[in-house]
Parts: sequence; structure tokens; C-alpha cells
Amino acid sequence: MNKNHPHLHLKDLGIDTYKEPVIYMRKDCHICRSEGFAAQSRVQVTLNNRSVIATLNTIESELLCHGEASLSRYAWDFLSAKNGDEISIAHPKPIESLSDIRSKIYGHELSSEQINHIVNDIVAGQLSDIHIATFLTATAGGHLSNREVFDLTTAMVGTGQHLTWPSSLIVDKHCVGGLPGNRTTLIVVPIVAAFGLMIPKTSSRAITSPAGTADTMEVLAPVDLDLIKMQHVVERESGCIVWGGTVALSPADDILIQIERAIDLDSEGQLVASVLSKKIAAGSTHLLIDIPVGPTAKVRSIQAATQLKELFDNIATQFGMTVKTIYSDGSQPVGRGIGPALEAQDVLQVLQGDKRAPQDLRDRALTLAGHILEFSPTVEPGQGKKIAKTILDSGKAWHKFQAICDAQGGMRDISKAPFSYDVVANNAGNIIDIDNRYIARIAKLAGAPNAKTAGVFLHVSSGQYIERNQPLFTVYAESEGELNYALLLLKQNPDIVQVGENK
Amino acid sequence: MNKNHPHLHLKDLGIDTYKEPVIYMRKDCHICRSEGFAAQSRVQVTLNNRSVIATLNTIESELLCHGEASLSRYAWDFLSAKNGDEISIAHPKPIESLSDIRSKIYGHELSSEQINHIVNDIVAGQLSDIHIATFLTATAGGHLSNREVFDLTTAMVGTGQHLTWPSSLIVDKHCVGGLPGNRTTLIVVPIVAAFGLMIPKTSSRAITSPAGTADTMEVLAPVDLDLIKMQHVVERESGCIVWGGTVALSPADDILIQIERAIDLDSEGQLVASVLSKKIAAGSTHLLIDIPVGPTAKVRSIQAATQLKELFDNIATQFGMTVKTIYSDGSQPVGRGIGPALEAQDVLQVLQGDKRAPQDLRDRALTLAGHILEFSPTVEPGQGKKIAKTILDSGKAWHKFQAICDAQGGMRDISKAPFSYDVVANNAGNIIDIDNRYIARIAKLAGAPNAKTAGVFLHVSSGQYIERNQPLFTVYAESEGELNYALLLLKQNPDIVQVGENK
Repeated sequence: MNKNHPHLHLKDLGIDTYKEPVIYMRKDCHICRSEGFAAQSRVQVTLNNRSVIATLNTIESELLCHGEASLSRYAWDFLSAKNGDEISIAHPKPIESLSDIRSKIYGHELSSEQINHIVNDIVAGQLSDIHIATFLTATAGGHLSNREVFDLTTAMVGTGQHLTWPSSLIVDKHCVGGLPGNRTTLIVVPIVAAFGLMIPKTSSRAITSPAGTADTMEVLAPVDLDLIKMQHVVERESGCIVWGGTVALSPADDILIQIERAIDLDSEGQLVASVLSKKIAAGSTHLLIDIPVGPTAKVRSIQAATQLKELFDNIATQFGMTVKTIYSDGSQPVGRGIGPALEAQDVLQVLQGDKRAPQDLRDRALTLAGHILEFSPTVEPGQGKKIAKTILDSGKAWHKFQAICDAQGGMRDISKAPFSYDVVANNAGNIIDIDNRYIARIAKLAGAPNAKTAGVFLHVSSGQYIERNQPLFTVYAESEGELNYALLLLKQNPDIVQVGENK
Repeated sequence: MNKNHPHLHLKDLGIDTYKEPVIYMRKDCHICRSEGFAAQSRVQVTLNNRSVIATLNTIESELLCHGEASLSRYAWDFLSAKNGDEISIAHPKPIESLSDIRSKIYGHELSSEQINHIVNDIVAGQLSDIHIATFLTATAGGHLSNREVFDLTTAMVGTGQHLTWPSSLIVDKHCVGGLPGNRTTLIVVPIVAAFGLMIPKTSSRAITSPAGTADTMEVLAPVDLDLIKMQHVVERESGCIVWGGTVALSPADDILIQIERAIDLDSEGQLVASVLSKKIAAGSTHLLIDIPVGPTAKVRSIQAATQLKELFDNIATQFGMTVKTIYSDGSQPVGRGIGPALEAQDVLQVLQGDKRAPQDLRDRALTLAGHILEFSPTVEPGQGKKIAKTILDSGKAWHKFQAICDAQGGMRDISKAPFSYDVVANNAGNIIDIDNRYIARIAKLAGAPNAKTAGVFLHVSSGQYIERNQPLFTVYAESEGELNYALLLLKQNPDIVQVGENK
């Protein structure tokens, strides 16, 4: 406790602002007066040598007595606060990294030091959400040089924990999102682990999509394992599928992702730094990157995919990592379900060899697993996919998946959404096009990924012939409000699934 | 009240978040559950046909009973809420203008419609602070075309009120900031009005500087006049100096400025649109723009000034406005005071013909007033400054200033800050350089502009010879905390005023 700074006693008001640290002080508090603080001021709050910069909200009522202050849930937990704790209050030092962010807006290249400084200030809670949004915007649109992406990756790795493994060959995969339902990870990991390669997979929750791999896996097993537990799972089963946020391999990225979600922005440089920082921290040596390309996927052209591949290659090589990139068809959703539970159902059908299993998902997973198996010196080039198929068809992958779920805390049953709506074809004809972006938006408006069982289930695929009134897709929601909200968008865009005229 | 949407009763918690609309709801509220809302969700709140999109903060304590919700001060006032009022809650419609903002990030030119849409969504409270920060960042760094700046200006004018005047010649001036203490407006307006030209001057409060013209004028008279009162003042005295925020000539700009302040960013395109939208709405026909140029001023080179001048010319001409731009010396602060009250003191000395009056401020004001007088068909080119000098020296300008203050609500006395600290020279020598940016930061850290009497008073100017221990400048503050905070920066940068070695 710094005796030179004024202090206040904490009272918990129980206000949750998500990740934004907020301090609540009386408007007529003597500190506001003496320090010149007003609503929206940035205030440095210190408790037992931990410190956070919070935004001030002032209180004009009797929620707080004189001498009291409160903190938002995030700041409260960040400082490990208890009722009655004495906090000290000070003006924050001028944030130098804000000048660096401004310099980036004006097109200047940032030095390694400047980037490091910005990333550290983000993790230390020095920069507000508005500042972080500014940083993300200034670095989007191709405004980061390769060197800056390298430095950003390094800085992100530096803020988190690192994993080391007994094996010298640690494989991993990453799919650049944008393709609803593309949940190959849950099939690839058990195949690769059953073969005997070590694959410590951490996945993200959805950034701008209706489900991330971690959201889908969470339907089937716990994913919020800490580092120690994750290591136990991998040492026992050779693989895991856990949420990257809990293991904190890249805490800077975890914060950036919150703001990216709010502004619905996921730029190339940030994407590469985000992915690689987590793989490097996870101790991976060999990485397969899958870039689905299609007019409504995240990456829309081979040119854009090539540019992204080159950036991945360039940065990964500098970290001594082997990267193989493949482009895949991104023209339509993969599998039939979009949303955590609906996607998990597709995955189980593939693993169990169910006849209803979506063949596109199965084939994609086998292709990816095959490429990964070829990282092994014992597998001949071109033989990987065949081996992967044998492992899947023998039931070994399904067995391994159950073992991984058990190791992660126990396998769960999939439940079904209480509200649903069938969308049918207005005329007979062939399916011309399915708009990934609108399908994803409908699933999100219906509540995915927070509502696990919400989403869209596709009954048809591109090229298929259908009759009039045949169901095209079903929208699922956990509440009537969310279902109506999704249907509202549907009404405005009735051609999400385009059916050609019956000639 | 939409009967289809769930509703809650309002309870005032008295929480002030400044301009961010926030809604407080119990975490276990049935609406959060049924609609899928969680902390940080964007929620559409409607009361008596007025509507705002607010960010959700959830409450885990007994601050709110079941069936109750609360709003932040800004949202409460925006909806004219009263305790017990019934609000309805809904998911906001997808914000299309957010896609337009993202498109700008990727370098695409925005259409007139897109710009109009964004500006209207800002005023209607549809976009959050994070979204607005993203928009400001994406359009900074020279990323707006002339056409986009024109459209931005048009859109801003469209959101506010318009003034019309009996005269066909309405003059105005604007100084592109960055030069501490440059308060010529308070001298120019009374000279021009005393001559008989109509000058309805609205000024801004500080954006990133220690004092805006409105902050300084407020030391001497009320500036928060509404449109009707402002028109009365101008009709009676030919001129006024009021705050643009209250008259709401460009409400979009008033919101943008809050976020620009938070990220300390004021870009060229936004600057031109901001200035011109207010002048157009104020009914001005002839505008003088003063661009101070200097290594530590806002505009640092003649090239940058020329670029800015061309943008002003281009856009103003399209609105049928006559613009004259002059470049002035921006190498050091103007006058001796930096901060509202200290600057007001400089102004009064000039108007009153006091011998201690800062001659640089006097000369700048006469130059500007001269140029403006030459907009009059009765003044020969090159004669304006002489006429301005006669009006100032005769006391007519001082007389007019007092009349304007009276008309605006009554002239006020200047008070003095209770805390101060003298910075003295460590050695004798000539003053080599005064760093505008650091002087401005010290004044801000000391509390300016919110603390009216806080700031910096310069005892010396560039080139002047001084003795060892002679005072260089005095820092003033209204609280000890703020004084110490300013002195901390001073300690880190002792060479803010550079004194050459005594040879």
C-alpha cells in the first residue's frame, strides 16, 4: 500500500462488465475532487502490489458510503479483492504505447520494442477497450509488415506459458475459419493420437463464427483444463482437445479476441500472430494449416489464400517450425450441423461409422489426418490418408476419442434445442448456392455459440435436386426470442439457399 | 410499448458512465435467460417510442429486484426515464453500418449512402464506443478521399440544426489547434463585430489540448447558450463566442470528439468535416482558416499545411463557401498562459491595452481580424490589419467584448489556482526551444481544461536571455494531487524549456 496515495475501502456491488475493468466511486468523493477525476477518467487501482487501470463510473446515489469504492467483477477478480480491502487510487502514468498505436495509424512501421510494449500494456490492463479497438483497426487491412507480424507473435508468446514435451515431434493443425460446421479437429486428433503421434491441441472458442472447436468439444467433454491437467491428458492419450483460453498460452490474444468479436474483425496479421503464438507456446514442431477457399468463406480467392500461406510460412520458419499449408473447398458448409451441439452430432456419426455421417466432413478429416501422419518419418509421402482411413474404420479413432473425453473429465450426452423452425423450398429444382455467411449469421442470431444446442441443421447440399416444400434447413434455438430474431433475418434474405427453377 | 417484447421496471441506481449507454439487469433475470443476453451484450431499450442500444452489465447482487432494470445516467436522460417507468427490451437489429466500417478498414471507398448511414447510426446511439473508435481509426491516416470527406461533412450537417441570418455576408474563423495559448478568437470576434460584420462564432472545448476556445471563454462568461439565445446575442451585438456543443450544430461531431479525446487522435479528414460541418450549419459564407506550422505544433510542415489547405478549399468550395487560409508561426506557444483562466488573463490584457499584454497574441489577433475585415467589400485588400488595430487601440473592441459577455449572461472575474510550482533555469543562457507538446501535457496533467485555473504560465520566450535560477514557467493546479502528477512528468523531461550554455 502506497501511503502517498489516497485510499478507499472496497464494497462488492456485484456488477459484471465482462472484461472491462471499472471502478465505482461516489461523484462527491474527496478523491474525485482532489485528483480531478470524473466519469470516464482512467484510474490506477492498486491492492496488495497488484494494479489495474480502470475506467471510472461515478455514483450519484447511496450505493456507496463515503470512503467506499467498488470494482467490476473482472477488476475485482484481477486484484483478488475481498469486501473491506483497502485500495489505493492514483493517476495512471501516461501510456506511451498509445503514441505507438497512433504512429501505426499514420502508416509508420512499429519497432520490436514498440510492439512488445503495446502487447504488454494490453495484458497488464493498461489499455482500455477503445484503445485496443484502435490498435486492431490500425493493424488490419494489410498494414503490418512481415517483421511486425513476427514481432507481434514473439510478444504474444512472451506473455504466456510454455509447454515442453518428451517427444521431439509434436504435431498440430489449424483451420482458418469461415466455414460453418468444419469440425474436423475432433476427428483428426483421435486418428493422429491413435497412430501414436503427440498432438496437444488447444482450440479457440468462436471469434466471429457460430461455433469454435472448443465450443463444439465442450458439448462432449470439459475443455477448460489448466496447463497441468492438459499435460496429463496428452501424456496419457497422446492428444487432447482443450480450450486455449484456460491454459493461457497467449493471454494477449485472449484479450484481443474479445474486442475482435465486438467489432467483428479478424485481420491477416493478427490471425497469423494469434495462431502461431499459441502453437509455439504449445511446443508444436510441425503444423498443418487448412485454408478453405470460397466466395463466401473467410478467404475468398486463391490469391488471398496464397498471400496468407506465405505469411504463415515466413513467420513459422523464423521460429523453426515446419508448416504445410493446404487449400480446401470453401464453397459450402461442411457437415450438416452449424452450432456446437449440431456439429458435435456430425462428428460422433463420423467417428462411430454411422451411415448417416456427413461424407464431406469424413473425407476432409481423413485428408487432414493423412497430411499430419506424413510428418512422421515412418509414413511414406502419399500414404497418410490410407493409414488414417484404416484407423478410423477400425474404430480405433472412436475408441481414442472416448479415452480423450474421459481423460478430460468425462464424456457428455448431446441434448436437443427446445425451439425449432423448418425452412422449406418454395419450388422444386437443384440447389444452386448456400450462402455460408448468412447461414452463420442465422445460427448466431439463434443463440450459437453461447446457447450450445442452437444453430442451423442443413438437410440439403449444393447440386442436389429437391421437391417443392422439401425442408432445406432447420433453425434451432434455446429461447423463443432468439428463434424469432433469427427468423427475422431469414425473412429479409429468403434466398440464403438458392434453388434453381425446375425446367 | 411493444407488447411482443419483454419489459422491466426502471430503478435509478445513479451510475454515471459519461456518454456510454449501459443497461443494468440481474444476471438471473428471466429476459437474460430467454433472450440469451450476457454481460457485454448489446441490447435495444425502448421507452415511450424512444430507443437506444445499450451495453448490458449484469448484476449478481440485490441492487435490483426481479423485474427491475437500471440505466446509466446518459441512457436514462436520453430516454427521459423516471423511476418505475416500464421499458421494453429487444435484440438490436444487425448494424449494417458496421460492415461499412469494416469495408473502410480494408481500404474500400465508402459511398455517400454508407457514410450517411454510419453518421446517423452514431447519432442514434446504434454504434458503441468501440465501434466509433474503429471508424475513427479506419478513416485516419489519410484514408478518406475528398469525396468521402465531402459526404462526411454533408452527413454531419444533416444531423444538426441550421442557422439563417438577415445578412448575406456571415464571416467566421477557425484555427487548426496544436498551439497552446492561441486564444485569438476572443480578440478577433469583438474587433470584427465592432466593425459591423456579423460573426456567429461557435467554438469547441479542448479535444486533445489543455484548453479549447469555449473553455477559455467560459472563464469570462457563460458559453452554453441554446440556439435561440445565441441568435439573440448575435442579432444584438453582431458577434458571439459560444460552445458549439449546446447549440448542437453537429451532434455527430460532438460524439466523435469524445472518442477522439479518449484515443488522442484528430485526423485530417475528420478535422475538415468537423470544422466545416459546424460552419455550414452556422450559416457562414466566408471563412478564414489559420494553420500554425511548427515542429511541435499539430501541423508540422508547410507540405502538410498545404495538403490540409487544399482539402479545406476543395470541400468548402463545394458548399459555396469562400475560404481564405493563412499559415502562421507555430514554433512556440502564443501568449504566456496555457489553460483556460491563464489564457483568459492574456486576452483581457490585450483587449484592455495593458502594457504587460503578450505582443505575439495581440499581433496574431490583428492579422487574423485584418484578413476577415477584408472579406467586406468596403475594405481594400491590405488595409484590414490597420483598421483592426484602430478598433483595438480605440477601446471599441474591449467595449464590444464586454457587451458580448453581458449578452451571453454576464461577465465573470478570473480566479487564481491555489497550488503552484515555479520551474527555474539551472544555468544562464538563451532560450533555445520550448516544446509545445510537453507544455500542453503538463498543463493537462495539472488539471486543464476541467480545472479552469490550472495550467502553465510561461515567464520567458524563445531567444530570450535569462539568468541562472530565473523562473522559466509556473505550473498551476486546483489540487495537490494534480500538481504532483504534472511535476512527475516534468521530472522525467527536465528539458521542456531548453536553455543554451552561457558562453
